[in-house]
Amino acid sequence: MSNVSQEHTGASDGPPPVRVAVIPDSFKGSASAVEAAEAMARGVREAYGERGIPVSVHTLPFADGGEGTLDALLGAWGAEPLTVETTDALGRPIRARFGVSPDGRTGVIEAAEANGLPAVADVPLQPRTASSRGVGPLVTELLDAGVEEILLCIGGSASTDGGTGVLSALGARFLGADGTELPDGGGRLRELAALDLGALDPRARTVRWRVACDVTNPLVGPEGAAAVFGPQKGADPEDVRVLDEGLDRLADVLAETTGDDLRNVPGMGAAGGIPVTLTALLGAEVLPGSRMVADVLGAGELLAGADLVLTGEGSFDSQSLGGKVVDAVRRLTPAHVPVVVIAGSVSVGSEDLRRSGVTAAFSIARGPRTLEQMQEEAVPAITWTAANCCRLLAPGRTAAG
Amino acid sequence: MSNVSQEHTGASDGPPPVRVAVIPDSFKGSASAVEAAEAMARGVREAYGERGIPVSVHTLPFADGGEGTLDALLGAWGAEPLTVETTDALGRPIRARFGVSPDGRTGVIEAAEANGLPAVADVPLQPRTASSRGVGPLVTELLDAGVEEILLCIGGSASTDGGTGVLSALGARFLGADGTELPDGGGRLRELAALDLGALDPRARTVRWRVACDVTNPLVGPEGAAAVFGPQKGADPEDVRVLDEGLDRLADVLAETTGDDLRNVPGMGAAGGIPVTLTALLGAEVLPGSRMVADVLGAGELLAGADLVLTGEGSFDSQSLGGKVVDAVRRLTPAHVPVVVIAGSVSVGSEDLRRSGVTAAFSIARGPRTLEQMQEEAVPAITWTAANCCRLLAPGRTAAG
Repeated sequence: MSNVSQEHTGASDGPPPVRVAVIPDSFKGSASAVEAAEAMARGVREAYGERGIPVSVHTLPFADGGEGTLDALLGAWGAEPLTVETTDALGRPIRARFGVSPDGRTGVIEAAEANGLPAVADVPLQPRTASSRGVGPLVTELLDAGVEEILLCIGGSASTDGGTGVLSALGARFLGADGTELPDGGGRLRELAALDLGALDPRARTVRWRVACDVTNPLVGPEGAAAVFGPQKGADPEDVRVLDEGLDRLADVLAETTGDDLRNVPGMGAAGGIPVTLTALLGAEVLPGSRMVADVLGAGELLAGADLVLTGEGSFDSQSLGGKVVDAVRRLTPAHVPVVVIAGSVSVGSEDLRRSGVTAAFSIARGPRTLEQMQEEAVPAITWTAANCCRLLAPGRTAAG
Repeated sequence: MSNVSQEHTGASDGPPPVRVAVIPDSFKGSASAVEAAEAMARGVREAYGERGIPVSVHTLPFADGGEGTLDALLGAWGAEPLTVETTDALGRPIRARFGVSPDGRTGVIEAAEANGLPAVADVPLQPRTASSRGVGPLVTELLDAGVEEILLCIGGSASTDGGTGVLSALGARFLGADGTELPDGGGRLRELAALDLGALDPRARTVRWRVACDVTNPLVGPEGAAAVFGPQKGADPEDVRVLDEGLDRLADVLAETTGDDLRNVPGMGAAGGIPVTLTALLGAEVLPGSRMVADVLGAGELLAGADLVLTGEGSFDSQSLGGKVVDAVRRLTPAHVPVVVIAGSVSVGSEDLRRSGVTAAFSIARGPRTLEQMQEEAVPAITWTAANCCRLLAPGRTAAG
């Protein structure tokens, strides 16, 4: 794992230090994963330090492949974001961030930096013409930088173009019956007749792709990209029908090209269908975001060697137990090692907590608070709560009385 | 100790059960000490039970001698309150509660049941005439019941009469220069010339008195009963002067009678000076309320034998660390045994927590909440928080994943 911070507190000749892994998601709206990890680490060191118990704290800002993943990876890598001029989902200029690991081997893109819904929220939604093309320049930057692998986080997109925009930007040509290139967006994909990969950047096919995807929707049909996610991108029923037909046609052409029909493969319907072209044409691996991040950061290795694990997120609820950060942390941690969740809001019940294998969960609220108050005091409250959890776990009291 | 509830969970042939002492104050406005103790006990049993660890839970509702002490003692004793018709601080009929231990030896009175401020809040405050006389019938009831000891909690009083009202009700006569009895209240005590104890109920002098008092104010002077507590009972500067002179005169007469001048003894200025007559004339012992309650309930014995102690209160703040329940619990618990505070609101800092010897403190808030929301969900939230604390303390996880 890269750039994991580590501190030792306490005597150097005594027992081996307690190994504490601190691996939180972001507390959305309150603290980034990096800030949360640092806040928890302070609490851990405070609690063990005041008892004179040697402790080794490893912080690893974590993420689930959704918003904040770029920041978490940059934080874990100790790297600064890079930026590139590209276009938003409607083709307007926008500056987008991306990241490269310190060893130069791994690049990370949050697609929504380019094709995200928030960037186009200033005008009426245009579900048929919204495109993923703006993601392309981010890819090209990474290819130019010589990365061996691209991690693509695709949540929050405004487009339903099956990823044709990304591929077009990289040189692929999606052609109509008359041999001319189709315009951007999913609205005209029904007219797709052929695919020309002659000008596709060859590096896009040799680089390793991993696409973080936490939904299991197929590309088309009633559970598909257009039907399920189209409406939140502005699609009315007629738009949904047109977009669904377009994705269906895309799947036909991809199947003709590759021999594999991916339209019913779970996950292909994420982010307007981006996974389908990346899988079919670039050999991308689609996997749950938390697993991707865990793998990239070496979380499994860290957690396997921990005596205690602190994780957390803004809201610890029933969703947290299905594929999110807390779930991934729990699964990667040996059964005998306590996993403590520290969260802004805790709304799981005892039975869910039991089933989850999480040892205990605590809110950072210290009394009656508004959401705004909690957000303001989040960082010190995370430290306080982490310290109190560790005070329970560390033997003995600190004298006084 | 009396009527302590105890449960065993888990195997009977395995290791000895973990001994958990649950000894909270009330969560004011949310849960009585009895309710809080039961809620915590449920959480303890849940956490240890789900791990199959045998546990023995002792609940002891606790109190600090202030409001709620009668309820806490009744709860610990498993006794119902008794009531008697008496008078409020202004002489109007009122029904007041009191308690007797199951063995009949100990009686408990919250003076404010009779002479409390809330009962006279419907009319303008009358600091000069407000009297502690209504406490007398409660005492007489206990003497009639044959108790060996009376525990008197004196907080929240409306009177500043030096306890002359209580003594008058028991037969003592506070006389003016003309030999006639002075009227009730502290406003005429300046005219006190002599004391006639001829008709004082002799049982009042043979019963053991303990008076719970958490302030250190002397009877008179700038830190005395009239100057410090008079204003909240409606005394203007002239009233304060008159009442202070009255208490000073009372101290003179008591000193003439007993040979002891108590006016500068710390604590004598509590509750309008009630301790001074009870000490001088009835031999009462004045002591901190939490110590009195701990002693009566055998808290020391319970805590000395515990492996883990859970306590708590509505607001855990800097005041909690000076003579309140949490402070008493901590002082009575062996240094190596963890003491966990569960509170509605936690506002002590790390440094205070460290100095206090409390192991860790947690709020029952599970996220952003108003005070009203927290009060509504207090009981289940206490259980949840206690369970999570115990989950941290109990080794191992509960499988799953």
